[in-house]
Amino acid sequence: MSQETIMSRRDALKLGFVGAGAAMLSASQAMAAAPTEKDVKFDEEYDVIVIGSGFAGLAAAAKSAERGYKVLILEKMGRVGGNSVINGGGMAIPNNPLQKKYGIEDSNEKFYADCLKAGLGINHVEMLELIAKRAFDAFDFAVKCGAQFQDDKPPLQFGGHSVARSVVTKNASGSGIIQPMAAFVEKLPGCKLVTRAKMDDFVMSNDGTTVIGVTARINYRFDNKLYSDDIENKTGEKKVYRAKKGVILASGGFAMDKMFRKMQDPRIPDDADTTNHDGATAGALLKAFQIGALPVHIDWIQQGPWASPDERGFGTSPHVTQGGTFKYGISVDVRNGKRFMNEMADRKTRADAQYVILRQDPKAYPVSLGTYNSFDQNVIETLDKALASGVMKKFDTLDALAANYKIPADALKATVKKYNEDVKNSVVDEFKKQTLPEIYGKEAIEMKGPFYASRQMPKPHHTMGGLKINTKAQVISANTNKPIPGFFAAGEVTGGTHGASRLGSCAITDCLVCGMVAGENI
Amino acid sequence: MSQETIMSRRDALKLGFVGAGAAMLSASQAMAAAPTEKDVKFDEEYDVIVIGSGFAGLAAAAKSAERGYKVLILEKMGRVGGNSVINGGGMAIPNNPLQKKYGIEDSNEKFYADCLKAGLGINHVEMLELIAKRAFDAFDFAVKCGAQFQDDKPPLQFGGHSVARSVVTKNASGSGIIQPMAAFVEKLPGCKLVTRAKMDDFVMSNDGTTVIGVTARINYRFDNKLYSDDIENKTGEKKVYRAKKGVILASGGFAMDKMFRKMQDPRIPDDADTTNHDGATAGALLKAFQIGALPVHIDWIQQGPWASPDERGFGTSPHVTQGGTFKYGISVDVRNGKRFMNEMADRKTRADAQYVILRQDPKAYPVSLGTYNSFDQNVIETLDKALASGVMKKFDTLDALAANYKIPADALKATVKKYNEDVKNSVVDEFKKQTLPEIYGKEAIEMKGPFYASRQMPKPHHTMGGLKINTKAQVISANTNKPIPGFFAAGEVTGGTHGASRLGSCAITDCLVCGMVAGENI
Repeated sequence: MSQETIMSRRDALKLGFVGAGAAMLSASQAMAAAPTEKDVKFDEEYDVIVIGSGFAGLAAAAKSAERGYKVLILEKMGRVGGNSVINGGGMAIPNNPLQKKYGIEDSNEKFYADCLKAGLGINHVEMLELIAKRAFDAFDFAVKCGAQFQDDKPPLQFGGHSVARSVVTKNASGSGIIQPMAAFVEKLPGCKLVTRAKMDDFVMSNDGTTVIGVTARINYRFDNKLYSDDIENKTGEKKVYRAKKGVILASGGFAMDKMFRKMQDPRIPDDADTTNHDGATAGALLKAFQIGALPVHIDWIQQGPWASPDERGFGTSPHVTQGGTFKYGISVDVRNGKRFMNEMADRKTRADAQYVILRQDPKAYPVSLGTYNSFDQNVIETLDKALASGVMKKFDTLDALAANYKIPADALKATVKKYNEDVKNSVVDEFKKQTLPEIYGKEAIEMKGPFYASRQMPKPHHTMGGLKINTKAQVISANTNKPIPGFFAAGEVTGGTHGASRLGSCAITDCLVCGMVAGENI
Repeated sequence: MSQETIMSRRDALKLGFVGAGAAMLSASQAMAAAPTEKDVKFDEEYDVIVIGSGFAGLAAAAKSAERGYKVLILEKMGRVGGNSVINGGGMAIPNNPLQKKYGIEDSNEKFYADCLKAGLGINHVEMLELIAKRAFDAFDFAVKCGAQFQDDKPPLQFGGHSVARSVVTKNASGSGIIQPMAAFVEKLPGCKLVTRAKMDDFVMSNDGTTVIGVTARINYRFDNKLYSDDIENKTGEKKVYRAKKGVILASGGFAMDKMFRKMQDPRIPDDADTTNHDGATAGALLKAFQIGALPVHIDWIQQGPWASPDERGFGTSPHVTQGGTFKYGISVDVRNGKRFMNEMADRKTRADAQYVILRQDPKAYPVSLGTYNSFDQNVIETLDKALASGVMKKFDTLDALAANYKIPADALKATVKKYNEDVKNSVVDEFKKQTLPEIYGKEAIEMKGPFYASRQMPKPHHTMGGLKINTKAQVISANTNKPIPGFFAAGEVTGGTHGASRLGSCAITDCLVCGMVAGENI
């Protein structure tokens, strides 16, 4: 392109001549928010461009690459795998062969019912049907890529699932899938995975209807000190990539996006820790809305009431509360020594109760406590870790415990006494927690001590909302209620599948299935 | 503009020359989804363009017009006022002079607490502060425009409000505000209100940053037979309007938008009736997202569990259930004759319970019933109306009632008997409904009859979600976290203020205040 033609365009703009023709274009031909083909010069060409390198992105890339497509994966962070590599590695597979082997009866209908119950009935059932139908394929595909699962023992029953239907990777981490799948993709000819490569915008066809590429920056350095990395970070060098078959958005959720998460839930403080990696921001999702993607269930942010302010991320607290102080002991408001919730209620109910306190006093983290009998056998190892790190503390007396957390000691003692009486006299305590005396013991919290205690706060964990896709992983347009040509999405950046609340171990299933489906259909 | 310049643009496009210069523009200068200045030719120029003629739109227009601005109001329907004219006319004004006159103590803090409780804590508090601070101004402004209120009696206490703080228009309808305000606006010089004028898109400045007008169609005929009027309706003639000061979006909620409401809550059948007017669709909101407006709380759709499938819209059923069969009687699942909810729980809990039944059998509308003692004195007039219209039916015996609704008669009788026993023996029934025997009587449902019954279904009533505005009613951009220049919004098209659930009589306050604020700040 010569300097002359550039000047002629500029002059035309300056003189205000350009646009008279465009005024006669129909609405569907109107300019797109994103740059269009005529605005850009492509630096490189691929068949498929995948944004993100978690479960969904890698499955999409692997499937596309397997079909012979030239694939570019753009990962904005310095390492591959987003939240997926810090995931616990559990994958729900309804009605799977391992269940049959161990005599566990399951059905897709049971799976839908479990998801709809947790999702408060607003799940997009066609998406549940898709992931149920393809879950075992996705498992097989992951295995083909090199993932290894604990398939020599019965599947696990995760919370909210009516049967044991989840298999776990051998290393009990999502990295057990991510690492082999990334290696699988990179080995295929014509495939490229670039880290520190941040997508900035979609490139649209000149008529504004079709996604034909992306603008991006390479050598990008994510900066977790910025309020909004997406808005403020100017690092990196610009590149424009053409995607001949289309773009697959697999950029994940936004639990670390201070701006967007606060709009949805203003209770989340800007300095709130989460269970997510730093890069879990909404930038790419918000760009998708600007080319017509539809927002779905955007404000359902699942927050873990079992997390602790005394460690980063997921940590040890979820285990030692869920299988310990929450289950057998109590959680108290430090300001008055009283209980304030059913410690085993659903995540939202408990996080809401904690926020009532924390909005009144942001540092009044509730304290959960119990005695040694307050821990399931399988959390003892984690208990030791939590004690070593200081997340869990041990006290000889309730007075010492109360003094440490500045809880009124007499009120705390009265609370413990009442809880023990409730457990002894009833199967349901005053907060409707099921407390069977034969399990909880005569003295649920042993007054002789020693006492174990830790502080809790809700931590954003998973963002249910995102953009709307159909069962081919095509992104639906607000302007047509039909797919946006050349635009696919998968994983946490999509919304609808899990409704108001995703069940544990369903993320891997959702991400792998929809990633794979995107790769098959693009 | 000569034919020559048009051709030169066309040729440039054809030859692929245009755009080389644009490739060198920075991201912030990229083309907008909406047409930009150079793409259009303005037919008319105004200072302010307001989209929608409900409470928010008219308040915005009135305030702008009062400042001397030339204002154009575009109303897509054939009549003025959207949902506002079918609103009940109640306006919450925290801490108002009428309360003082009648010795009712109130405070802004009490108002925030009430809203946050209903809103499940996710309300944007700065917006609550704004509407509390300006509520009385808005009332005054409405009165100045000619609205008349029942100010000769104490304010009313609407559900969820901790004190009586709501005033009602003299005709107990939102039309008592809309009609005088529309007349006020039209009387001001330079103001124009056009009905059957549908906004299609925003027009942006050439650098894509600023809203400078809209494209629209006049002589538009809304068609409620289309699945999506916004997408399918092609009626009307195109016009392009410049807005020198900016555009105020006051296009309302989307409870009648089959496509978008189903994405947020798939339980809502496409043929579901609502309490809204036909034109309550998401079209303008979805266009706003495409120029960078941020979606907030999009999926909270308040549905009225007190509505009936046997009448259109709001109707009589809300009164004769809330002050009648729900309060003193019971609601049963017609398939088994059993109760299935606390008939006085919050709206969401009850609508959820009804949907569990209706998703299993879409025609199994639950039936609520009681005897004459099941009605508060102030609903007797409505009861007569409901009986006359056939929404409420009267039966001599439970057998006749059961036969009519195909309820197993023996099961129904057992349910009524158990309810009467529960009320007699306890102050809280099995569904945790507070049933004080001294109020409910020895026999809550009198076995001698006659029996009154009606069918219920949840009807979408108010969409809490929308786009994010600040306290100046400026629309916030996803790309900058700052206001989009020239773009304001007010009313149900915005989200955040009411969190998960809006309290009754807060809509008028919100809409008038934010409309007024938009008109003041534009």
